[in-house]
Amino acid sequence: VTPPRHFADRLAEAVLAKNSRICVGCDPDPAYLPPALAAGRDAVAAVERFGLDLLDAVAKFTPAVKFQSAFYERFGAAGVAVLERHLAAARGRGLIAIADVKRGDVGHTCRAYADAYLAAGAPLEADAVTVTPYLGADTLAPFADAAAKYGKGFFVVVRSSNPSAADCQEVVTADGRPLYERVARMTVAAGADNVGECGYAAAGAVVGATSPAAVAALRKLMPRQIFLIPGVGAQGGEPALLGPAFDERGLGGLVAASRSVAFAWRERGDGDWAAAAADAARELRDAVNVLGPFGC
Amino acid sequence: VTPPRHFADRLAEAVLAKNSRICVGCDPDPAYLPPALAAGRDAVAAVERFGLDLLDAVAKFTPAVKFQSAFYERFGAAGVAVLERHLAAARGRGLIAIADVKRGDVGHTCRAYADAYLAAGAPLEADAVTVTPYLGADTLAPFADAAAKYGKGFFVVVRSSNPSAADCQEVVTADGRPLYERVARMTVAAGADNVGECGYAAAGAVVGATSPAAVAALRKLMPRQIFLIPGVGAQGGEPALLGPAFDERGLGGLVAASRSVAFAWRERGDGDWAAAAADAARELRDAVNVLGPFGC
Repeated sequence: VTPPRHFADRLAEAVLAKNSRICVGCDPDPAYLPPALAAGRDAVAAVERFGLDLLDAVAKFTPAVKFQSAFYERFGAAGVAVLERHLAAARGRGLIAIADVKRGDVGHTCRAYADAYLAAGAPLEADAVTVTPYLGADTLAPFADAAAKYGKGFFVVVRSSNPSAADCQEVVTADGRPLYERVARMTVAAGADNVGECGYAAAGAVVGATSPAAVAALRKLMPRQIFLIPGVGAQGGEPALLGPAFDERGLGGLVAASRSVAFAWRERGDGDWAAAAADAARELRDAVNVLGPFGC
Repeated sequence: VTPPRHFADRLAEAVLAKNSRICVGCDPDPAYLPPALAAGRDAVAAVERFGLDLLDAVAKFTPAVKFQSAFYERFGAAGVAVLERHLAAARGRGLIAIADVKRGDVGHTCRAYADAYLAAGAPLEADAVTVTPYLGADTLAPFADAAAKYGKGFFVVVRSSNPSAADCQEVVTADGRPLYERVARMTVAAGADNVGECGYAAAGAVVGATSPAAVAALRKLMPRQIFLIPGVGAQGGEPALLGPAFDERGLGGLVAASRSVAFAWRERGDGDWAAAAADAARELRDAVNVLGPFGC
């Protein structure tokens, strides 16, 4: 049996092929779906059509997409069935598909979560998953195991982009450093023995664009982690400040945007919501590439 | 419109009616399902039958049950459809049904999670949900709002029962106290304005039985929080050390056990796995009630 290709290498190849370092998020909140799309469809059918059309619109401009599980779970099993089809559609087009599920629990439970999202052939199979660290290293180990077995990745929430991120993450510990640096070290440890040819690990980190100083500090602590970087667009983070996330090849980071791309029609008019999303994705791609020139 | 009855009052009534302070967990790991039950059924059908038979077996001895989402998500939408039916079956028998999902994300995403699990009529409607706090107070607010609107509850993971709980939760902060005490204060704040007639809040806390000293310390910090207490049984926590969780009425805590009840047949023989689960639930109920006498 050929071992699966390493997640970080698959992602690097997609990034270089498209010369794009972004990740478009699909958060199908019914309150924001384009009215023309929602009209005449029930809510679940509108979510399904929205995600498929969004993939069509942005595939040329992005190597990766992420799906926010909450907006599918709201519809129960019917919504989760749509998530299955969205993940499959994204992977079927060669996009790196991230299940943004922020799971985190005790070890034996995380084994089930890792199987749910990373195992080959699982109904909800994705290329990578997001994980929360509050329960400690037990949480990360099953995802690390599954990532190695199946050629997949996982992104640990180290420093998030939301207003209350500081409540836990920036608590100063007895050694004078913020808690998120300790989580960074946990993440490094979880990925230490599984690094791809490109130099990056299967264990990545969610690091918010809203704190550029943290991005720079965390890059020093986590030289082999791919950063999934939310917080540009709706939350105010600036792509121009994210240089430290990227190496000279333009690898090491993915700038994630959800509402500001998928719902760009709200700012740009809804004559053609998909064209507005495509324009927003292209513009974000270009705004990140200004950080280069990258040697590719 | 009559406002919904407060979650804590509904739970208190169930506790006093059954004179039981436990929560039986359904973690339908296929590796542990009784062979006689699994034989001749596909994996999803075996999970469904297992959960329904478990409810039959333990309903007399427990006021509450919790369902571990990971073991349903492994099967994708087909598994989540079983979770829908298990939640409905539990609530249909008058059991307090907890969706043990450990969700935690930014505010607008948590609104969708809160709708998914707490909204009246949602496909995955439960009486309460578990939440992780790493993303801060933004995470808790939408659950608090939904709890108030729908008469539901939520349990914030404050101090978990797993071996690596210390990694984040016991980090000593600059004020010399463990991080989990800060999370306890966040939880109190999230439930401050929504307390039932019984004196307990809709915002509860997950507090592991594996650290009885933390249970006692946290009870002082969180006098109005219901403690959902995992870690007895398979993880080694002792019911006899959990006195500080309970008030003189025997309210304020639910001792949760999953594998040690549902899979008791592994220790007791599988002649009748459901009878073994019922015996284990009754014994756990009695072991907790030894902490009394409670005035009911």
